[in-house]
Amino acid sequence: MPTINVELDQHSYPLYIGAGCLSETFILQHIPHDEVLIVSNAIVAEHYLKTLENSLKGKRCKSVLLPDGESFKTLDTLNLIFDALVMHKFSRQCTLIALGGGVVGDITGFAAACYQRGVGYIQVPTSLLAQVDSSIGGKTAVNHKLGKNMIGAFYQPKAVIIDVNTLSTLAQREFASGLAEVIKYGLIYDAHFFEWLEQNAQEIYARDINILSEMITRCCQIKADIVAQDEKDLGLRMILNFGHTFAHAIEAIAGYGELLHGEAVAIGMVLALRLSEKLALIHYHLVERLQNWLKCMQLPTELPKALSSKALLEAMELDKKNTDSSNRFILLEGLGRAVIKQDVALGLVQSVLKEV
Amino acid sequence: MPTINVELDQHSYPLYIGAGCLSETFILQHIPHDEVLIVSNAIVAEHYLKTLENSLKGKRCKSVLLPDGESFKTLDTLNLIFDALVMHKFSRQCTLIALGGGVVGDITGFAAACYQRGVGYIQVPTSLLAQVDSSIGGKTAVNHKLGKNMIGAFYQPKAVIIDVNTLSTLAQREFASGLAEVIKYGLIYDAHFFEWLEQNAQEIYARDINILSEMITRCCQIKADIVAQDEKDLGLRMILNFGHTFAHAIEAIAGYGELLHGEAVAIGMVLALRLSEKLALIHYHLVERLQNWLKCMQLPTELPKALSSKALLEAMELDKKNTDSSNRFILLEGLGRAVIKQDVALGLVQSVLKEV
Repeated sequence: MPTINVELDQHSYPLYIGAGCLSETFILQHIPHDEVLIVSNAIVAEHYLKTLENSLKGKRCKSVLLPDGESFKTLDTLNLIFDALVMHKFSRQCTLIALGGGVVGDITGFAAACYQRGVGYIQVPTSLLAQVDSSIGGKTAVNHKLGKNMIGAFYQPKAVIIDVNTLSTLAQREFASGLAEVIKYGLIYDAHFFEWLEQNAQEIYARDINILSEMITRCCQIKADIVAQDEKDLGLRMILNFGHTFAHAIEAIAGYGELLHGEAVAIGMVLALRLSEKLALIHYHLVERLQNWLKCMQLPTELPKALSSKALLEAMELDKKNTDSSNRFILLEGLGRAVIKQDVALGLVQSVLKEV
Repeated sequence: MPTINVELDQHSYPLYIGAGCLSETFILQHIPHDEVLIVSNAIVAEHYLKTLENSLKGKRCKSVLLPDGESFKTLDTLNLIFDALVMHKFSRQCTLIALGGGVVGDITGFAAACYQRGVGYIQVPTSLLAQVDSSIGGKTAVNHKLGKNMIGAFYQPKAVIIDVNTLSTLAQREFASGLAEVIKYGLIYDAHFFEWLEQNAQEIYARDINILSEMITRCCQIKADIVAQDEKDLGLRMILNFGHTFAHAIEAIAGYGELLHGEAVAIGMVLALRLSEKLALIHYHLVERLQNWLKCMQLPTELPKALSSKALLEAMELDKKNTDSSNRFILLEGLGRAVIKQDVALGLVQSVLKEV
């Protein structure tokens, strides 16, 4: 089974990637004490909760199910986890396990960061988006009604366990949403991987398990590599937000949950590439290659007509990546090469928003 | 002006202690960017908000007032701070300033730990309890309805600014409450300081500003010393919880806000000393010395009659200091010498609860 290490000194941890690894018991080595709370939602729990519980034999294992969806990634939902922990009288030695997609992972990680000022947790991501992105790197958060991921912590898990088989039960739209983050790694960091994704588009769309394993492993390597160099998102790690300045604004204006995160990222990446092109950093041909691949995966490539570019611009100001409200964008200066540009002219951004 | 450094490698920070230092502008060196949110409550703000704002000339200074009291130390109140930060579109570069007592300090510190996954904050404690204890060491938290400080973070401030003059407007009961934590330092760490407190009881009660400055400086030195050795509360720092296992249970059962924290600690310390005496670790004479001093300061030395010892025992199980629910207590084995005892017989605890 491929194992990748996220190197963060005393916070280092392994990512395990394998088909069927959810039924293995190696998870136990990352749980020092008896108390375990599994956090999931009803849909994921129906498929995988029993399997995970069987791998945790001998532990005092409790579970709590959260309402599903980005619109429930709130302080109120977070409090459901605290209620369960306190009700079961779990101590500072307990371990939380996030079994689910990005929403479950982000909330559970934040709950672990805060309960008794910090307890251990393990990520068991079951969506593609969580497997290749959100479960790795310790960014945990809930949303504020006026801003995505505004309340959270940098808090690393003890391990990430990726069972590729769980993708078999994932809805098509959710699967495609994860693929947006996959192609992002090629764009910002690895031209060869981008080409590999183009060449294997059919197999990926058909969810060939071997191709998916290879794809996910490469994504995890890239993410682990970037996080190890910049845990706190002060430099290099910002390139992972390629397309996200636009995406967060799109999600906020459309209303959380209307568009899936990956769908907003797909549109955001097209916008970011168009902006790169307008600044003469890349050729238009790359925009087309991205659009083609996204279309193959049934991902959107244009802004929904209902979204006003004025509202989007306003929402972007609040984005966490903006230091003192300067217009900073993550762009490409070539395939596989991301670059951070300060003071991008507002007019250019506006025209891109109108054209896409 | 006495300055003490809390030595925590890259998280080190200074404590400034002085009469009138709130009107000085040295605070500015700890605020790297423009955006400042002062968090306070109506009572404290009436006395000191203007003074602080004057010291922050040139900054984009906003403020938010929280409802006052331990019963408002909740996730809902925390959210008022997030609302203000988001509403003012404050970035990751902003600084929070906690102007107030322990409740304001604990919530503000936790808000700083979470907003955009961590922004800077400064403690400006105005109550005695906050000046000698809660503002130092980075323990931030809010309460869960079933447990005090169950939700929080270890998150150090950039500086702590202690203006001893602010004690002049503190209500007598609040002042006395802080003195419980003061005598604790003598009991657990510094026999000489305990004797100094006995000798200067009258001046302390009369709030002689020079004596108070000396007293607070000594407390801050001890706290900084202990925190530097054990930031995350895994060993030595636990002795700061002397009397607190009882105190937290007393507060939870009496209902938050019925007894002030220091009042509960005063009773808790008497209980802990009685337990130490029952285990033949100390002589009864020390219990009497503590009781005498507490009475001089108008602090309670007995459990309120309404509290059942059964309910107290139950509440103690949930206390964060208990690893896997073993009966661990912080006791004294002599004046100035704290000791952590595992597996204290439940019968002894029960009899102490009945006697005090």
